[in-house]
Amino acid sequence: MEDLLDLLTLARRGDDRALAKLITAVENAADGVLDLLDAVEVDESTHVLGVTGPPGSGKSTLVDRLVGRFRAQGRRVAVLLVDPSSPFTGGAVLGDRIRMQHHTGDDGVFIRSLGSRGHQGGLTRSTDQVLHLVRSAPFDQVIVETVGVGQTELQVMDLADTVLVVLVPEAGDAVQAMKAGLMEIAHLFAVNKSDRPGADRLVLELQQAVRGEGDGDIPVLAVSALQQEGLEALETAIASHRDHLRENPRAARSPRARLFSLLADGLVRRLAARIGRPPSSADLQSLLDAMETGAISPYRAAAMLLDDDRMLRDLLGVDEDSI
Amino acid sequence: MEDLLDLLTLARRGDDRALAKLITAVENAADGVLDLLDAVEVDESTHVLGVTGPPGSGKSTLVDRLVGRFRAQGRRVAVLLVDPSSPFTGGAVLGDRIRMQHHTGDDGVFIRSLGSRGHQGGLTRSTDQVLHLVRSAPFDQVIVETVGVGQTELQVMDLADTVLVVLVPEAGDAVQAMKAGLMEIAHLFAVNKSDRPGADRLVLELQQAVRGEGDGDIPVLAVSALQQEGLEALETAIASHRDHLRENPRAARSPRARLFSLLADGLVRRLAARIGRPPSSADLQSLLDAMETGAISPYRAAAMLLDDDRMLRDLLGVDEDSI
Repeated sequence: MEDLLDLLTLARRGDDRALAKLITAVENAADGVLDLLDAVEVDESTHVLGVTGPPGSGKSTLVDRLVGRFRAQGRRVAVLLVDPSSPFTGGAVLGDRIRMQHHTGDDGVFIRSLGSRGHQGGLTRSTDQVLHLVRSAPFDQVIVETVGVGQTELQVMDLADTVLVVLVPEAGDAVQAMKAGLMEIAHLFAVNKSDRPGADRLVLELQQAVRGEGDGDIPVLAVSALQQEGLEALETAIASHRDHLRENPRAARSPRARLFSLLADGLVRRLAARIGRPPSSADLQSLLDAMETGAISPYRAAAMLLDDDRMLRDLLGVDEDSI
Repeated sequence: MEDLLDLLTLARRGDDRALAKLITAVENAADGVLDLLDAVEVDESTHVLGVTGPPGSGKSTLVDRLVGRFRAQGRRVAVLLVDPSSPFTGGAVLGDRIRMQHHTGDDGVFIRSLGSRGHQGGLTRSTDQVLHLVRSAPFDQVIVETVGVGQTELQVMDLADTVLVVLVPEAGDAVQAMKAGLMEIAHLFAVNKSDRPGADRLVLELQQAVRGEGDGDIPVLAVSALQQEGLEALETAIASHRDHLRENPRAARSPRARLFSLLADGLVRRLAARIGRPPSSADLQSLLDAMETGAISPYRAAAMLLDDDRMLRDLLGVDEDSI
């Protein structure tokens, strides 16, 4: 415990090895992590850029280019790669790391992969805690990149100040992006591999789709990460959104709303961890009896339980750890 | 509402179009779904085979082959393809559908993709409800296939009677499979693309790793879905596990334990949906104040809240729908 707080002091001063150890502790839900998180002082001014998009859209190459540009301005950058779909190092995350490799010798860049870790792990669920930690270290820019655009990934984007959605013509059209919920979360769209057939059409479709969304139109930019085209405009658009948030605090989510969201996620996570075994109370046993005879479905039972204080408390029990 | 129950009657008689409509209703959390689920009578004797493994392990081709073999025995088969990582039809799921295409003209095969659907959708979370429905229709064999092996995918495997884990040498070694939590859930391993270098070694590694796990050793089989090798042995191993469960009901999870697990998942899902906005009660506001000053972290606050009946009730409110 003592150790974690010592490491936190070091991490705050820019010791990335200390930060890496703290992240591991959080991932493993080590003893003392709650005390550690209480001690964290988040720097609300650190800009968090979220980058998401379907697999194969070239997000990693684009992030790699952006890291290079941020570094050229002397900014310290942290990159978190979130892959909830695979705990295998042979998967996408390793590929991402390889693509990022030429930043690994750079002291000003901190790169960390967050995969899922088996059944009970819930590593991606601790992404918010990891970000909480990273925001207490002296980075000017944090980038959170996800591998896909599933539900977990979109939830992760909730943690970002500015969300960049990267699409390619092959991955679908604007209607699909809308269905996928990307319109709701994007502050910026980049159509990558802009030299490919269909790129111009996708840009137009997106521009039409986003008209009137957000505060003013959402920028849609054609880029080619590989050929280094359109990157300056993209960087400017990211900076504009960041500045817009700073100048219009009401456009940004309030720290209180953000904290509430973290609280809600934390609560759901704890609740899920707490409900491990069938409870012994008579009321709950009758509910299980009714399910077993087919009188009610488990879904109906869940709805009933949530509104019954006594049964809910029986089910949750009391967690000795939290006292 | 009336409609859903009519459709259920049709689906029970083997009308797959009716079943498809019901699944859509469940996915969209349509009105009357709770009543529908109450009316479902699950056939506990339907065998549910779960197939999981990292991307690129050839799961879909293998499932396609298994479907062909089950059909040759005249069994009606339902296949659910779960892809939590992408709502894009251009992604893996479309690929899977294409690979399965030569079964689509077959009345005895029902194929359905379950992707995630944007931010609020939670489609993969309704996989258990969809399976509940499918198990009430006259299928002899249900196959649930996932795209990756992340946390969501492993949770989905909880719903299966027999879990087949498909690996390929390129995707990693036995140690990684262990780390990924695959040892805990597998009843059978298939090493696919058995003609590739490293396949024999992976088979040996897995055999050593599983020794003493489960009831007797977990079978590890070398197969080649593409070249149709080892498929008969795989089919036999699947049938053996199914028969083992039927003859040893205590080896299988009890219906009561399964129902409790569905109840717990349903409760967590409902709870997550219910906590939408910061509550107005004074206690909760002070908790948010303490978070905002940095006195406690949101994670500590979540731990406190879960053990405080009054605050928890304030936060959950009362759901009018469930009365």
